[in-house]
Amino acid sequence: MNYLGIGVSPGNVPVYHGNNLKVIDRRVRVTELVLRCVIFGLAILGVILIGTDKQVKVIFSIEKIAKFTDMKALVFLVIANGLAAAYSLVQVLRCILSMIRGTVLFNKPLAWAIFSGDQLMAYLTLTAVAAAAQSAVFAKLGQTELQWMKICNMYGKFCNQVGEGIASSLIVSLSMIVLSGISAFSLFRLYGNSKGKGNAI
Amino acid sequence: MNYLGIGVSPGNVPVYHGNNLKVIDRRVRVTELVLRCVIFGLAILGVILIGTDKQVKVIFSIEKIAKFTDMKALVFLVIANGLAAAYSLVQVLRCILSMIRGTVLFNKPLAWAIFSGDQLMAYLTLTAVAAAAQSAVFAKLGQTELQWMKICNMYGKFCNQVGEGIASSLIVSLSMIVLSGISAFSLFRLYGNSKGKGNAI
Repeated sequence: MNYLGIGVSPGNVPVYHGNNLKVIDRRVRVTELVLRCVIFGLAILGVILIGTDKQVKVIFSIEKIAKFTDMKALVFLVIANGLAAAYSLVQVLRCILSMIRGTVLFNKPLAWAIFSGDQLMAYLTLTAVAAAAQSAVFAKLGQTELQWMKICNMYGKFCNQVGEGIASSLIVSLSMIVLSGISAFSLFRLYGNSKGKGNAI
Repeated sequence: MNYLGIGVSPGNVPVYHGNNLKVIDRRVRVTELVLRCVIFGLAILGVILIGTDKQVKVIFSIEKIAKFTDMKALVFLVIANGLAAAYSLVQVLRCILSMIRGTVLFNKPLAWAIFSGDQLMAYLTLTAVAAAAQSAVFAKLGQTELQWMKICNMYGKFCNQVGEGIASSLIVSLSMIVLSGISAFSLFRLYGNSKGKGNAI
């Protein structure tokens, strides 16, 4: 008599359960790979859009240059996007490697590392996007109560490109949120208890 | 012969496994209850600190009033804290009810609802804190490149109280992040596969 499947060799696992698992695993892995590629591409795009943004304006023969380093929130966003791109590249390679080998994630320390990394990146990118978006709102609309004037009517092209960079970063952070859900699923189902299966609706 | 524990009545579950589960469940439930109470208290504190903040300054016989509605990010933070407090109150009641009844969360739709709610609140409160913190940085330090002057040397008392409100909200959002991890654990372990148990490190 064997309770809870402990010590059950893979050959003994009922077929319907194994198939079900395989389908879920395949879907999870494909979704994960696609999202990580999207994040990699859009994070690089965000870095390029914001990092190369510059506009020169001549006012009464004085040359004024608007660049992303004038606003700390944009520097933070470029750094966050750079980190997200580097992290995603490593994860894409890991996903491809595990697909080639055909292994499934049953290693708790690795699952914990991926879960922690994904959570950290999701919160980091979201924080950076929120701070940059707040700065962009001030730049676009100004804050008359505080006598902070809008600057986007002076630097229109600069502001538009920053806006595109923030939009790209927002998709990066939303994708990271979905991914952190997937890695939470991959990690915590390793702690599954069979007792729950019978009662679960 | 019984595979995977499906259909095993609770009485047949090996004792060491049941005890282990009970210890984890008790710890998870106590941590959850404490965190939800902390969030409720600090979110209310955040609402009071920011919502009641006001400073009157007389400049050349003109009365100037600083209040939280002057800055949209602070209004957003007050709303986010209010939602977090209301949500936590409902969740505290649910936790107490489930503790009195002694039931364990094995209901997938309820686990999904709690998981989604916690995730939403974690991202919402973090976004609100990031936007408010960015505004506070501008108010405290100004942004000389854009000719946005600092206002905290004029409204010192107002700014300090806002700072305390943001600090309180930051603890709310960090607690929500930990809670969203706990609810992810409670949900996804219901999808556990016993095959993994043998291989897991």
